[in-house]
Order: sequence, then structure tokens, then C-alpha cells
Amino acid sequence: MNSYPDSLSGLIDQLKKLPGIGRKTAARLAFHMVRMPDGDAGKLAEAILDVKKRLSLCSFCQNLTESDPCAICRDPHREVYQLCVVEYPADAVAIENSGAFRGRYFVLHGNLAPMQGLGPDDLRLDKLRQLVEKQQINEVVIATNPTVEGNATALLLSKILQPLGVQLSRPACGLPVGADLEYMDPITIRKSLDGRGPL
Amino acid sequence: MNSYPDSLSGLIDQLKKLPGIGRKTAARLAFHMVRMPDGDAGKLAEAILDVKKRLSLCSFCQNLTESDPCAICRDPHREVYQLCVVEYPADAVAIENSGAFRGRYFVLHGNLAPMQGLGPDDLRLDKLRQLVEKQQINEVVIATNPTVEGNATALLLSKILQPLGVQLSRPACGLPVGADLEYMDPITIRKSLDGRGPL
Repeated sequence: MNSYPDSLSGLIDQLKKLPGIGRKTAARLAFHMVRMPDGDAGKLAEAILDVKKRLSLCSFCQNLTESDPCAICRDPHREVYQLCVVEYPADAVAIENSGAFRGRYFVLHGNLAPMQGLGPDDLRLDKLRQLVEKQQINEVVIATNPTVEGNATALLLSKILQPLGVQLSRPACGLPVGADLEYMDPITIRKSLDGRGPL
Repeated sequence: MNSYPDSLSGLIDQLKKLPGIGRKTAARLAFHMVRMPDGDAGKLAEAILDVKKRLSLCSFCQNLTESDPCAICRDPHREVYQLCVVEYPADAVAIENSGAFRGRYFVLHGNLAPMQGLGPDDLRLDKLRQLVEKQQINEVVIATNPTVEGNATALLLSKILQPLGVQLSRPACGLPVGADLEYMDPITIRKSLDGRGPL
């Protein structure tokens, strides 16, 4: 039941493997690529290969980088005693864009998700412990997501880091700016009321 | 406000050019590609280049093919006097998968959409006229989409093909199988009632 030429089916099969891309979206993207100018398609293919060739992990923070150590770990103006632990590189970028943190990062590349087969061994915890000990860090912000997996990960990290005598914290939970109370979930509302502060 | 390494930003920029892919989806796909095994990323890049290298247009039906004429135009078991005109290659595949048409196709690679700058000159109408004349076709099913643009295209085609003395038809409009009347738009309901047939 598939009358596409082989090379087109092949491309659709490869695109289908990407997250959130089903059969129909894959076909739509593939047809778009067929219609693209040759140069643009070449640039896309090259960008995919380039990212695999040039990116590696920073040996300090484990974030994605093209030069080791990464730009943030090399930056002498960063607060060296503060560390922010995040699940994924995109989380570090989001915090960086907020401008609210001036320390360094540590990227776990995952969280505790036993249902997906992810356990403590997948989280580079040895590297985190070494970093905290060697760099004389005294404050660690555990910025894993406020989800079941993220909270479980935070609990595990606190057990590992507490004995090292560092101050631990979690970002506050509450209403996102611009939210409409009517549409907020009850757990977030409860968290925001439990954590209420003076006006 | 972007702290991604250059090669990652580059890939995100390329992915953002694809239809229906915004900044966030592009970043999600790019991070997925970074995490993919090198072999899989290579296969994806290769499939993109392959599709550009191997696909061309069938000189008869203008459909995408790896060999000219395409498999359908070469097939001696197809009804040679029937032609089905569609907007895009994906439309021909959809009709082919229905098994309801045994003739050959002609792919316009577009429709009349003046707002997007698409006019009659973009639709390979000369090739269609030549094909109908030379192949002694006597029935043309104009299967452009039942949209404003598709209907306008059908009208244009009928003006070009009528003088050639071929029988013209359009696929029926009505309720799709499995539809719920409650959620159907009024124009489709009207079309389905106008076109009602005996039980």
C-alpha cells in the first residue's frame, strides 16, 4: 500500500524515527525536502552531520560544547562557588536566557525514570560529586523539573550532596507569570499558596 | 539570548525552515539528533541527499520517480484512456492506495493560488494538453482538492480540456465515511444532501 519511490520511502522512514513525527508529518516533510532547492537540502544534511561531528561534552559541566571546557566553564566572571544542576542542555539554556543565575551548570542528561529504564547509573553522578568536591562549590541549586521524575532526581541528588556540606536549594514552585488562576491545575495553586510571601 | 553552540544553532536554523516546525520543535528535534547514534544521524542526512539526487519527474505524468517513465506510466495493465489530474504527488499516492482508479495520473505540482503567487503558468498545463492529445485519452478525472484553489484549478482545466473533446469529471463531495454529522461543517452537509442517491 505504498507507491512512493524507494528514496522517498527511505527518507520518510528516517524522518518517522524523530520524536513527535508520525507517518503523515514525515511524508509532508519529505515532500517539502523534494521541493526544496538542492542547496537548502544540502545545508540541512550538512548541519545534521556537523552537529554530530563538532559537539562533545564539556569535561566539567557535561553540557554540549564545541570546545572543552565550554564557554561558561571558561568564563572567569562566573560565580565559581555556585552550581546549578539541570536535566538537559536545553534547561541550562532556558536558565541562562533568564539571566537570573551567574554560577556554573552541571547537566545530568536525564532524570530518574525507572519506567523508561533510567536509573542513578545514567546520570553521571560520579562526575557531579567530583566537581562539587574539587571546585569547592558551596551552593548547589537543584533545578531538575518539578515533575515526579525531576523531584525523585532532586531527592537522590540531595542524599549524595548533603554529606559534602554544600547548601542545597530548589527553584520555587508557583503560578507562572501571566497565568490565569481559572485554568491553573490545583496542585500548582496549592504550591503557590503554601509558598505565599508578603506583599 | 541564545547560548547554543554554533553547530547546534545552525541545525536548529535549518530545521526551522521546514513546514510546521517552529523554534521549539526545531530545538527538540536538534537535541534528539545530538543524542542519536552517529549511524542514525548519518542515515538521515544521506536519505535527504539521496532523495534530491535520485528523484526526477516522469516525462509523461510529471509524478516523482526514480526511473523515467515512472512505474505507473510503464505498466501495460493500466487503463490507457483514463487520466486522473491531481495537485501533488501525495494525492496520487492516496488515490492509488484506495485502489479505485486504474488509469494513469497527471501531477500539476500546485494549484491556482494567486495569493501565493501561483498562476496558470506554474501548473505544467502545456504538458497536460500534449499528453491528452497524444495519448488519445477520452476521460479525465479532475481530482484537485475540493477547496477554493482546487475548484478554481478544476474550472481552468475544464476550459483547457473541453475543446479536446474528452469527458470530464470531479470526485463526489459529501460526508467522509465514519463521520459524525454533529461535527461536520454545513457546506459539506449541504453538498452531501444535494448529491443524495437512492438507498
